[in-house]
Amino acid sequence: MIRLFPVALLFLAGSAFAATSPECLSCHERDTPAAVARWRASAHAGTVGCVDCHGSDHEAMTAGAARVDTAVCGRCHERAFQQHVASRHGMGLHSGWGCTRTLPRRDPRECRFCHEEGSTLPKSTVHCARFLAQSSEMGEIGCNRCHQVESSCASCHTSHGTDLAIVRRPEICATCHMGPDHPQWEMWQTSRHGVLYSAGGETAGPSCQGCHMPAGSHNVSAGITMTSGMDLLPADERSRQREKMLDICASCHPRESSRRELARGDAVREQSVALVDRAAETIRRLNDRNLLRPSPEERPPHPLSGQQLVLDSQMLYENLSRAERLFFKMKKYDLAKAVKGAYHQNPAYAHWYGNAELKLTLSEIESEAALLDRVAGMNEHGAGPPNPDSRLAGLEQRLQELKRRYERGGMTLDEYTAEKARVLEAVRSSAP
Amino acid sequence: MIRLFPVALLFLAGSAFAATSPECLSCHERDTPAAVARWRASAHAGTVGCVDCHGSDHEAMTAGAARVDTAVCGRCHERAFQQHVASRHGMGLHSGWGCTRTLPRRDPRECRFCHEEGSTLPKSTVHCARFLAQSSEMGEIGCNRCHQVESSCASCHTSHGTDLAIVRRPEICATCHMGPDHPQWEMWQTSRHGVLYSAGGETAGPSCQGCHMPAGSHNVSAGITMTSGMDLLPADERSRQREKMLDICASCHPRESSRRELARGDAVREQSVALVDRAAETIRRLNDRNLLRPSPEERPPHPLSGQQLVLDSQMLYENLSRAERLFFKMKKYDLAKAVKGAYHQNPAYAHWYGNAELKLTLSEIESEAALLDRVAGMNEHGAGPPNPDSRLAGLEQRLQELKRRYERGGMTLDEYTAEKARVLEAVRSSAP
Amino acid sequence: MIRLFPVALLFLAGSAFAATSPECLSCHERDTPAAVARWRASAHAGTVGCVDCHGSDHEAMTAGAARVDTAVCGRCHERAFQQHVASRHGMGLHSGWGCTRTLPRRDPRECRFCHEEGSTLPKSTVHCARFLAQSSEMGEIGCNRCHQVESSCASCHTSHGTDLAIVRRPEICATCHMGPDHPQWEMWQTSRHGVLYSAGGETAGPSCQGCHMPAGSHNVSAGITMTSGMDLLPADERSRQREKMLDICASCHPRESSRRELARGDAVREQSVALVDRAAETIRRLNDRNLLRPSPEERPPHPLSGQQLVLDSQMLYENLSRAERLFFKMKKYDLAKAVKGAYHQNPAYAHWYGNAELKLTLSEIESEAALLDRVAGMNEHGAGPPNPDSRLAGLEQRLQELKRRYERGGMTLDEYTAEKARVLEAVRSSAP
Repeated sequence: MIRLFPVALLFLAGSAFAATSPECLSCHERDTPAAVARWRASAHAGTVGCVDCHGSDHEAMTAGAARVDTAVCGRCHERAFQQHVASRHGMGLHSGWGCTRTLPRRDPRECRFCHEEGSTLPKSTVHCARFLAQSSEMGEIGCNRCHQVESSCASCHTSHGTDLAIVRRPEICATCHMGPDHPQWEMWQTSRHGVLYSAGGETAGPSCQGCHMPAGSHNVSAGITMTSGMDLLPADERSRQREKMLDICASCHPRESSRRELARGDAVREQSVALVDRAAETIRRLNDRNLLRPSPEERPPHPLSGQQLVLDSQMLYENLSRAERLFFKMKKYDLAKAVKGAYHQNPAYAHWYGNAELKLTLSEIESEAALLDRVAGMNEHGAGPPNPDSRLAGLEQRLQELKRRYERGGMTLDEYTAEKARVLEAVRSSAP
Repeated sequence: MIRLFPVALLFLAGSAFAATSPECLSCHERDTPAAVARWRASAHAGTVGCVDCHGSDHEAMTAGAARVDTAVCGRCHERAFQQHVASRHGMGLHSGWGCTRTLPRRDPRECRFCHEEGSTLPKSTVHCARFLAQSSEMGEIGCNRCHQVESSCASCHTSHGTDLAIVRRPEICATCHMGPDHPQWEMWQTSRHGVLYSAGGETAGPSCQGCHMPAGSHNVSAGITMTSGMDLLPADERSRQREKMLDICASCHPRESSRRELARGDAVREQSVALVDRAAETIRRLNDRNLLRPSPEERPPHPLSGQQLVLDSQMLYENLSRAERLFFKMKKYDLAKAVKGAYHQNPAYAHWYGNAELKLTLSEIESEAALLDRVAGMNEHGAGPPNPDSRLAGLEQRLQELKRRYERGGMTLDEYTAEKARVLEAVRSSAP
Repeated sequence: MIRLFPVALLFLAGSAFAATSPECLSCHERDTPAAVARWRASAHAGTVGCVDCHGSDHEAMTAGAARVDTAVCGRCHERAFQQHVASRHGMGLHSGWGCTRTLPRRDPRECRFCHEEGSTLPKSTVHCARFLAQSSEMGEIGCNRCHQVESSCASCHTSHGTDLAIVRRPEICATCHMGPDHPQWEMWQTSRHGVLYSAGGETAGPSCQGCHMPAGSHNVSAGITMTSGMDLLPADERSRQREKMLDICASCHPRESSRRELARGDAVREQSVALVDRAAETIRRLNDRNLLRPSPEERPPHPLSGQQLVLDSQMLYENLSRAERLFFKMKKYDLAKAVKGAYHQNPAYAHWYGNAELKLTLSEIESEAALLDRVAGMNEHGAGPPNPDSRLAGLEQRLQELKRRYERGGMTLDEYTAEKARVLEAVRSSAP
């Protein structure tokens, strides 16, 4: 899982720290004075010099191709590095995919997107479908700015400085843990925990780090019972993690009270996922009837699945029908707000931004489906008496729908055969 | 209105304060050390002990059924308690309904949802339609977390601590007064008042408390001229409250200038409500023509109104047609942003989040209505020459529409009779 | 460009500062004590008195018609005033229009909205289309509260105080630079720059002023390469401004690294504008086919363009078809979030709030277009065999569509003539 970049190798091959780097400073005191000043004021000054972290390939640095990998920092900061690697932060997010090794329902073929057969080292060329469909500039600015946390301690610690007072502030987490898809920052900030922290400091209410990095641990996933896609972890792992979180709550709250509260979050997760599943089924049925426009066949192919309807975590946000566009909002935005809002004790996120939006958007999808059905029905039957041509067209459409539904696993072969026979018999017996 | 919980009764029956509660501390110093430490550092330490507030039914406490009621605090903090009860915070919000006693246009039958005939005590079993349609977990996390303020001083003061410096900070109000339905926190924070407070403290700009809790008053409704549903208070009450607010503004602003500014807010309220009313009328007419899908008749029944179209403050956010889903956004989210944004002097909320969204969403509803009308018209007339069957279906539909409109009070009996006669005559005279 | 208000003229005509204004204070110490106290604590106390800034027309002041113009402050604060006038802040925004003099593709007739022929003084009666369609109260609270910055130093500095520590805080910019149409405040606040500022102060991360008002400059537009409508400045001006910004970045970042980063922003701008243009073309084609409801002809006339489809910066947000309503969101909200999010280094704004919303909303517009096309096609052809009447109606509609497309510049006269001939020939040859 750990990738050893040239810089790291160079470093590991070295035998001692270069206390200062006078040849660097001669230019950089003039060219990047703030960076140099920050290093001078840091704990690294006098012991860890420029070359120790950056290596000596100046051309690569200028080209932006010589980032300081986590493994470089890990040589000295070993415990933090190991905790980081074991956490979701160390899980290959940099590839834009996110390791699925803890997913209970994962597709084993997924491993091959990131790994050679039999290897745990990620391949550097692998990306998620959204990343693959993205421009390189937005991929860099929009995706990798956060999904570099696997390989860059500077994601949180920033470059050159070592001021722990800064990196222990909850704001540090905000840049990545915000926005429509996972607004943990916003929901913490206005939760009771957040407002008490803001009004009275760490002793009045806990920060992000207070619950997710207790005692300075870099395993930010401890105490979390679901994957980043909100699938449940296996039951035994789940209870182990729950107990860890309850230990943290216990410094302020009676254990039974916290357990009750987190169980409410579990229920909200289950109820919210059910709303998303109901919407997905509506969309699959629209696709069975070929009512999505553009249809999956009319779109540019999905980078991983080709000309297929994709509603899972690899769903794109472009070239969608309206029903899918609404579904994307439910699955990616509203669901996260409801579930994470509940666990983070933010009523407005759990309820208004989450639950109410899930239900409003599900309504909208089903209302859209009703309209598409109605328009399609008019296409088939028109206003006048049915004519033989349109009856045949309707039959063909119905058989096509059954075929699509069968092929996506929405019915068994037996059900498919029986239903097909029923449809054909109905046509035969009603023939004039 | 004040409900006396068992804990309160127990307390009121007691005769003296238990200065300490050693039998509690022996366990809780170990089990909830932070809570004990906070109490020890509070003004209550040494005078008000655990049992004084929590009572002695430990089983109920562990089950989460022994919350400390406002009446318990009110025994000592009498003035604050009375002000709280007189304000919107004390109005039975906990039941999820919100007392309607100050509403000018209220339906007298509404009282019975909360009160026995002739009683001012709320019944504990009563809830709002949204709460009734909600899962118990979301009801607890999403609704009651805020709508407990009636009966819990800890809603703002937090448990065990008595640090006034914390509770006077505006952040304290944020957890409840935020989100899509009433973002007072967000709009204050970025208003001139909020940015000056943030940049220079209370002397540079007022906090929430500065205007809504002057001199520490717990009547948070003073100076407000409308109900929480944005209906106007009766005229005389309205001017009394307006003068109260102008007294507060006067410490910084010339009275005439503030009066002008608040009058602009009044105008924005009226203009915004008119946009919502226009949308409601469009939806009622769609329902008269039976064009909403799902129709009110096809849905799970509304918990209070059954199989009816509900567009008032008891409107649900589930199983709606698209037009209603958009209307919900207008009525519950956009309207609040426009009106409260204007009174709170936040241009982006008043205009972009409020006014522009009201107009954009009204456009969308009317565009949806035009499409549904068009599709329905095609159902009736098709593309070929009208045939007698579809003409009869159209007649029946038109008569049904008139009947629905009459029944909802959209036309008088005379108008209904005359219009029905006109429709029938038109069909007769055009018959081939 | 600088308007000299009566107050300013009066002031300019004066010869010396009135050190104190005892006749004002005798009432105002009682009526507006906070304002007087703030003045007493300011650098102006003892040197610049009430009349020096406000003039002596007390009736106009009470009526709110005697605002202190920037020119009044400019008499003493000359350098800041000149920088302000040269920047976007001084560009006639107060009129609600925004000067277009730097726009590469501007329509020369636009000048006449603000200026008499041959004059650079703005006419005071001129407004933008949105302002013209707006109620006077919302115009004041929603538009002019920010678009007064041209003529009011108090927009940022607030009234009566002169505390620079306050006005150098980034919050000061928030009230105007926030919201759906330009959330610079929100995107800075959660960018790395913003979180470092928040966690460690100005030396840890730059504030708004740090990059946009370096060394206290009041030319807030320095270093920006596009207009407020996100059109590119002319190439030479663009590179001049880019170098200015790189100078600012250089205090912390290597120049090549900043240049690469800002070039990514340029690419995101171009890609985002292309998505908006694609949506505009879809809507123009819908309008060619007369499928927008309400159609531009059915609406209240646009204040500047009358009964026309308007999709440029003068687009209204009311009485739109659904496709246009969605387009408004793309053009005014999503585009700004993508582009400004990229330049401000905020991944969630650039990507999720910006790019993903642009693509999702474009999908929705195209899906809406497909549905409208389908319904229109059914109107033309129905379900039965084509009848002569509907064929003629279809022909008329197609010719109308070509005419509209030609008239809006969507095809040349030659293309129009050729296509019209082709359509007529096709009908002729298929006639029974």
